[in-house]
Amino acid sequence: MYYSIFGQFKKQLLQMDTWFDAAEAHAKAKSFSPDVYATLRLAPDQLAFARQVQIACDTAKLAACRLTGKEAPSQADTEVTIEELRVRVKTVVAYLDGFVAPDFAEAATRSITQPRWEGRTMTGADYFLEHALPNFYFHVNHVYAILRHNGVSLGKKDYLGALTQHAPA
Amino acid sequence: MYYSIFGQFKKQLLQMDTWFDAAEAHAKAKSFSPDVYATLRLAPDQLAFARQVQIACDTAKLAACRLTGKEAPSQADTEVTIEELRVRVKTVVAYLDGFVAPDFAEAATRSITQPRWEGRTMTGADYFLEHALPNFYFHVNHVYAILRHNGVSLGKKDYLGALTQHAPA
Repeated sequence: MYYSIFGQFKKQLLQMDTWFDAAEAHAKAKSFSPDVYATLRLAPDQLAFARQVQIACDTAKLAACRLTGKEAPSQADTEVTIEELRVRVKTVVAYLDGFVAPDFAEAATRSITQPRWEGRTMTGADYFLEHALPNFYFHVNHVYAILRHNGVSLGKKDYLGALTQHAPA
Repeated sequence: MYYSIFGQFKKQLLQMDTWFDAAEAHAKAKSFSPDVYATLRLAPDQLAFARQVQIACDTAKLAACRLTGKEAPSQADTEVTIEELRVRVKTVVAYLDGFVAPDFAEAATRSITQPRWEGRTMTGADYFLEHALPNFYFHVNHVYAILRHNGVSLGKKDYLGALTQHAPA
């Protein structure tokens, strides 16, 4: 199921890219630079939009690497424009495309750590459920909420994207 | 894994209850009624805080019912105070406590529908990944974001809650 959830993460990241279209359209209609969005935040002590996008991408990338034992490629976190943020999103989605289901075979039982945990560890199963999954959706939703709060017209269909539905029998 | 994710949903709902503590403390310090929070929203065409809490609860409840073939108990959506919202959260967590892992044995292959889909269906696996999971985190994060935007002091530890970590070997 890890592999399936990463499929959903990729879909969610690509939906985020469509929100950038809406942000650019709104900025154009109001005659301001869409890159203003990269600097906005919901509270003065929260991270700004660009950082929310970067962390959403990194949370997906790092979780995939940690759960499969791969080395994570590093990104410089230098994006300041919507166009640069689009590239960041597409780069991580392309990277996630390189994983296959068998890569996650031992994911649940791997021992996961990160520098700020000072040697403490989590099982892959606990790390994914308690840390990676809620964090990913935290940052994706803050990207969405910053746009909505600042006039961009988005709705649930933009958030969820297309659903795999079957016609009535 | 469905059962494990519902465990995470319960944890997340109980974390939300601790955010209400922080909201009440902030309201008390500023001498306003904490129930004002129930009416706040991030954009005029988004749902207000109380509705975000109700839908977070309902998304978890309805997903558990749909994936296990149970009838969902209905709630009246009449909460207007923080105390009433606390009861709503605790009621759904207690309800989810009644599920056991074997209830989800056929979750992935069930045929799921809801009235607004006009007869179209999704498999349980697709419904959970593409609809229930992102929707649950959407509403939980909007609850969090409305509080943060309106002065309540919360951080990532409040969002995630305690992590199942193991001491260094």
